[in-house]
Amino acid sequence: MMTAPLFERLAIVGLGLIGSSLARRVRQDGCAGELVAYDASPAVRARVAELGIADRVAETGADAVRDADCVVLCVPVGAMGSTAADLLPHMKPGAILSDVGSTKQSVIETIRPLLPDGIAFVPAHPLAGTEYSGPDSGFPTLFEGRWTLLTPPEDGDPDATAQVAALWRSCGAMTREMDPAHHDRVLAIVSHLPHLLAFTICGTADDLEGESRSEVLQFAASGFRDFTRIAASDPVMWRDVFLNNREALLEMLARFTEDAQAMARAIRWGDEDFIVDRIERGRRIRRSLIEIRQA
Amino acid sequence: MMTAPLFERLAIVGLGLIGSSLARRVRQDGCAGELVAYDASPAVRARVAELGIADRVAETGADAVRDADCVVLCVPVGAMGSTAADLLPHMKPGAILSDVGSTKQSVIETIRPLLPDGIAFVPAHPLAGTEYSGPDSGFPTLFEGRWTLLTPPEDGDPDATAQVAALWRSCGAMTREMDPAHHDRVLAIVSHLPHLLAFTICGTADDLEGESRSEVLQFAASGFRDFTRIAASDPVMWRDVFLNNREALLEMLARFTEDAQAMARAIRWGDEDFIVDRIERGRRIRRSLIEIRQA
Repeated sequence: MMTAPLFERLAIVGLGLIGSSLARRVRQDGCAGELVAYDASPAVRARVAELGIADRVAETGADAVRDADCVVLCVPVGAMGSTAADLLPHMKPGAILSDVGSTKQSVIETIRPLLPDGIAFVPAHPLAGTEYSGPDSGFPTLFEGRWTLLTPPEDGDPDATAQVAALWRSCGAMTREMDPAHHDRVLAIVSHLPHLLAFTICGTADDLEGESRSEVLQFAASGFRDFTRIAASDPVMWRDVFLNNREALLEMLARFTEDAQAMARAIRWGDEDFIVDRIERGRRIRRSLIEIRQA
Repeated sequence: MMTAPLFERLAIVGLGLIGSSLARRVRQDGCAGELVAYDASPAVRARVAELGIADRVAETGADAVRDADCVVLCVPVGAMGSTAADLLPHMKPGAILSDVGSTKQSVIETIRPLLPDGIAFVPAHPLAGTEYSGPDSGFPTLFEGRWTLLTPPEDGDPDATAQVAALWRSCGAMTREMDPAHHDRVLAIVSHLPHLLAFTICGTADDLEGESRSEVLQFAASGFRDFTRIAASDPVMWRDVFLNNREALLEMLARFTEDAQAMARAIRWGDEDFIVDRIERGRRIRRSLIEIRQA
């Protein structure tokens, strides 16, 4: 579908799974007059040029963002601050800076003090991903039918927010505005804690002695395998997410641990009603999920 | 595929997901001369007769197992003892008793003292399942390409073990013999602990206040959803599994909790190397899984 360009020139910085998917979709739909790509890694830049998923691959960040109407940072949340500090002095007045980070409070705290007058910052988070990473892993339908959450500041520029929302909707996403603290809390339970548990159980299994350890792999289909899919995700991205959503994640993990200990106690003492009640909740939640057609 | 009957008469007791899948497959392949079904629930018996997945539906357990060459108990592990006690007096000498319980030590401890002379007991566990339950949820290919573990006692009857193994291989399963204690330990980490974690995180999410709780469902696709699938499993079956594999499960949960607390500490104090190391393990395990073609 060809639409009138939303931006004369759009720059995507960081061409991993999210950045390269966004690039592919923007190129396909023509919603940017010119799409410029930049990645700090020379190997990724070369690969992006080879793949032909941007109109131009810039050799420096400064060159990528100069004259761009909108710059979308698609780097791990731990790299958002230094990347923004490098690029902001080269952005033109009136341009929009946005990002795709999985944590919003930390990104806002890092970037807001760096913002010069005349640059609007629109924090965003597309809730989409796979367990793969890098420029080859992206695909143009990644955001189709998925949410992108926008967490603009109260004193932000409503027009800039609307333009970034339009960009994500042109990628097939549904958009919603949300308070950044609330975003971080919701994501802690629906995404960050599940990933932490999945990484952890893989480690626990990996520590088992000899024969049991090899049999974990052999018999993984019995439930364990569902955890390994999300445990295959990008280490640097997830390290940064954990460190940048520390408070909300540790709170959710503390609640979860209390609940797991209560379950352990019920198992030890044979409290059948308690155990069945907890299992029934899982079923109810799954049914609700199916009802709202997410499952 | 039609094969010579392995058993003149086979009785399946308990027609849930596993029992009804076994019935469907046995009927399809003709590996029993006559297939008799019995379930303690009159509604299930009526439904099995309607579905036509057995040659005959018996009205009593005694009637079902009389003259059967092999009886397979497909009831929750907590019901194995009382079911076996009811049926064994009616079984003919030379017959085989088997089961499909997800825990093996507790089932063996419960059933062995009840065994009369002339009845061979072959404990077995097909590692297959879905999140659905009941006689309508079964399908004949459930065991295809999956393991069935046999945990025969050292003084058991090798011919009976071979016949039960042949029954499961006729269902498309691969079979392996294993020590019951080792079985319970391996299953604790690959199946029972993942289910416990999945039930628990659903409960933790369900306890969240107002808006966050409803948004868990809305944004579940970000990782949480992978946990809800296995959390939709049958409550009575899982209650019994947890209570009957208590020691191994609590030990694996204790190891997991230590590991999760170590991760929490690393997040609190910003120990990047520790976090990345744990995440890398998840990736390695996923890669190994894919290599052995289980994923």
